[in-house]
Amino acid sequence: MKVYIINIGDELLIGQVVNTLAADLAKMLDPHDIEVEMVEMIADDEAAITAAVERALASDCEVVLTTGGLGPTRDDITKKVMLGIFGGNMVEDEATLKNVGMIVERRGLKLNDLTRAQALVPSSCRVIQNSAGTAPIMWFERDGKVLISMPGVPFETLTMMREQIIDQLMERFPSDVAHQRRVMIVTGYTESALAQELADIEDTMPSFIHLAYLPRPGIVRLRLDGRHHDAELLEAEVTKVAKRIGERLGDAVKATDDLTEAQILLKVLGERNLTVGTAESCTGGNIAHQITLIPGSSASYMGSVVSYANRVKTSLLGVDEDTIAKNGVVSIPVVEQMASGVCRALGVDVGIATSGIAGPGGAVPGKPVGTVCIAVAVCGKVVSRLCHFPGSRDRVIDRATTTALVMAIDTITGASYDLHGYLSNRNETALPG
Amino acid sequence: MKVYIINIGDELLIGQVVNTLAADLAKMLDPHDIEVEMVEMIADDEAAITAAVERALASDCEVVLTTGGLGPTRDDITKKVMLGIFGGNMVEDEATLKNVGMIVERRGLKLNDLTRAQALVPSSCRVIQNSAGTAPIMWFERDGKVLISMPGVPFETLTMMREQIIDQLMERFPSDVAHQRRVMIVTGYTESALAQELADIEDTMPSFIHLAYLPRPGIVRLRLDGRHHDAELLEAEVTKVAKRIGERLGDAVKATDDLTEAQILLKVLGERNLTVGTAESCTGGNIAHQITLIPGSSASYMGSVVSYANRVKTSLLGVDEDTIAKNGVVSIPVVEQMASGVCRALGVDVGIATSGIAGPGGAVPGKPVGTVCIAVAVCGKVVSRLCHFPGSRDRVIDRATTTALVMAIDTITGASYDLHGYLSNRNETALPG
Repeated sequence: MKVYIINIGDELLIGQVVNTLAADLAKMLDPHDIEVEMVEMIADDEAAITAAVERALASDCEVVLTTGGLGPTRDDITKKVMLGIFGGNMVEDEATLKNVGMIVERRGLKLNDLTRAQALVPSSCRVIQNSAGTAPIMWFERDGKVLISMPGVPFETLTMMREQIIDQLMERFPSDVAHQRRVMIVTGYTESALAQELADIEDTMPSFIHLAYLPRPGIVRLRLDGRHHDAELLEAEVTKVAKRIGERLGDAVKATDDLTEAQILLKVLGERNLTVGTAESCTGGNIAHQITLIPGSSASYMGSVVSYANRVKTSLLGVDEDTIAKNGVVSIPVVEQMASGVCRALGVDVGIATSGIAGPGGAVPGKPVGTVCIAVAVCGKVVSRLCHFPGSRDRVIDRATTTALVMAIDTITGASYDLHGYLSNRNETALPG
Repeated sequence: MKVYIINIGDELLIGQVVNTLAADLAKMLDPHDIEVEMVEMIADDEAAITAAVERALASDCEVVLTTGGLGPTRDDITKKVMLGIFGGNMVEDEATLKNVGMIVERRGLKLNDLTRAQALVPSSCRVIQNSAGTAPIMWFERDGKVLISMPGVPFETLTMMREQIIDQLMERFPSDVAHQRRVMIVTGYTESALAQELADIEDTMPSFIHLAYLPRPGIVRLRLDGRHHDAELLEAEVTKVAKRIGERLGDAVKATDDLTEAQILLKVLGERNLTVGTAESCTGGNIAHQITLIPGSSASYMGSVVSYANRVKTSLLGVDEDTIAKNGVVSIPVVEQMASGVCRALGVDVGIATSGIAGPGGAVPGKPVGTVCIAVAVCGKVVSRLCHFPGSRDRVIDRATTTALVMAIDTITGASYDLHGYLSNRNETALPG
């Protein structure tokens, strides 16, 4: 099944809102082998919406998903436009009115003209009751194609996709093409070096298998996709290619699931029964945030000290004031003390620390914006690295975060650590808390 | 000037990568009144790219910006497709080859066939030298329209837009329509209540002015946009409407710039010469991250304790063990102690604390997933709130973060605090560190 997504909303086109919804929809559809062929973002504008919908219905996609423009305010016009395209009259949908009334009441408010208007729908659609909000979800059909108009609020649309819409689409358009995917997370290669390493495998693999490279700082994500009518043949061939790649790359493959860096870290920590904490200056809590986004992270992750002010570095992390005075706060000695300090302060096995200049201000002679010191303390030993990241503040924070996570993964999985000795020692020592 | 953006990349259509680049491009173009009329995301597929480019060149946009598909690996085919569309031969661009050679060398690597191929460009384009990466940026022209093919790596494309491309576009297509925008950040209203409050103003404002509502938890962002050939008239009319709205809403308007919640908090802290720290359990460092994303945040923000494990709450924040035992860790008494505790531990005036169940696991009887306690300690007084947020883990974290920031803003700006008394007292007390 092929899907055409149209995200409607002025806010998307002026960059006020990042279109995370399209990515989340695609991620949710992908395991069902529902392929997103095109995503369009357009304005809350009648001509633009009409043109996009007509184009989508004329494409080879069976399904058109639109999001947005269903709110109660005047700038939301999607419903009116759909009425123009699919015909019929505006009618009040009783079930929607009941739902809107309930939600409004639950919020301690009363129905007003605007919220009541949420229950109006074109008579040409079938309404899918929205269990997560007030906007009705509308299923239209024309010439064997389906168009579903959904809210722009990601939570509502994703909830309804998961609860009802995907099932209804699978029933409406049953598929007969099988899909296989393998993902490998590789460290220690640049994108082009990896492509050269795998060139002969790419040359000889079947044409229905496709290999894609997705580079991130310190990491390349390899994605192998295959599609074929013969499911058994497909699985055998994809498995064969994946095996060849795996053998070629050996230990450079850190994971064979589509994991984030934080997920890989939690996996290697969990396998070794280690706990982790972070001591963050320039990353300002983003490493902690990336780790705690992962469900179940509390099994390995104990906490963090975000030490923006120097006095927090000395008082909570035990960084030596003289070391700061002598080397500056963005320095290897300070960040190493932060990594060890957080292990002590939180009673954790692994400490990840950052200190740097995210910019745009704060540069000092010899330390331009983008200078970041990273240290990882693993089981009592500390490794550290001085990095220079290009770009804006958010990019420096993002790259420092990813690099710190990859450094922790590489350090923990590296052979140079006597984890066994540390662990047996740890068990004999009383841990704080 | 109108722009049509085409983001090329399989990773966008399967949701592996969120399209932040389109939003960042739009945000960068907007102040120059370069309007993004359409954003399309399509696959690394010859037919799809060709169709999208032909559609874009046939639209009423003067400029087409494509991103992606310029990498050294085999899945990147944009250059070949552009050759097909605009004609010419592939030629080696000397300046690009020199640039690629330099970058490769700086990384301690050698040119290989793949990186060398980066210097090949269609003879039908003008090359804009990429100062931020290896992929050449290509400027094509056809029938008075411009197409610029840029890398999918956000940093490279955004750097080049800022450094060269916007200027070159402004020179190529000078504009004669003026644009005015006003933004107001409003708290204390739902979206529909706010729309009702402003209905008569909307009814009577000129048709070349447009009002949009962007709701976030606890906050609505109002955006007033006007476009007119007469710049003076436009400014006068937009100012008049903005003034009417401002007078109607009074203190509910927390900012008249397009600020994030964290930026508003830093503004109200800065105006009052207050410092802030956070004590985060379920938000896991995200409040700290949102604050530290803002340049200059170090003037008010001192640090955070992310206390995921209970022992971190007791040891670093001084939360009473009995209070945890009696009320549970997700409770008003605990989160209030966390807020006060972080003020003490970090020596800050304002403490923001969260403790909750972000899910999907962790629910206990009477406290379902989404239960979050938030406390704000301002100048020695503590306010707190028990919230229930719907949705997935990342959504609970996001809503708890926004709600905590808005609570801090409302509390600090609220009239019930004797800031004056507190501040004169603070000046007499020695602060830690």
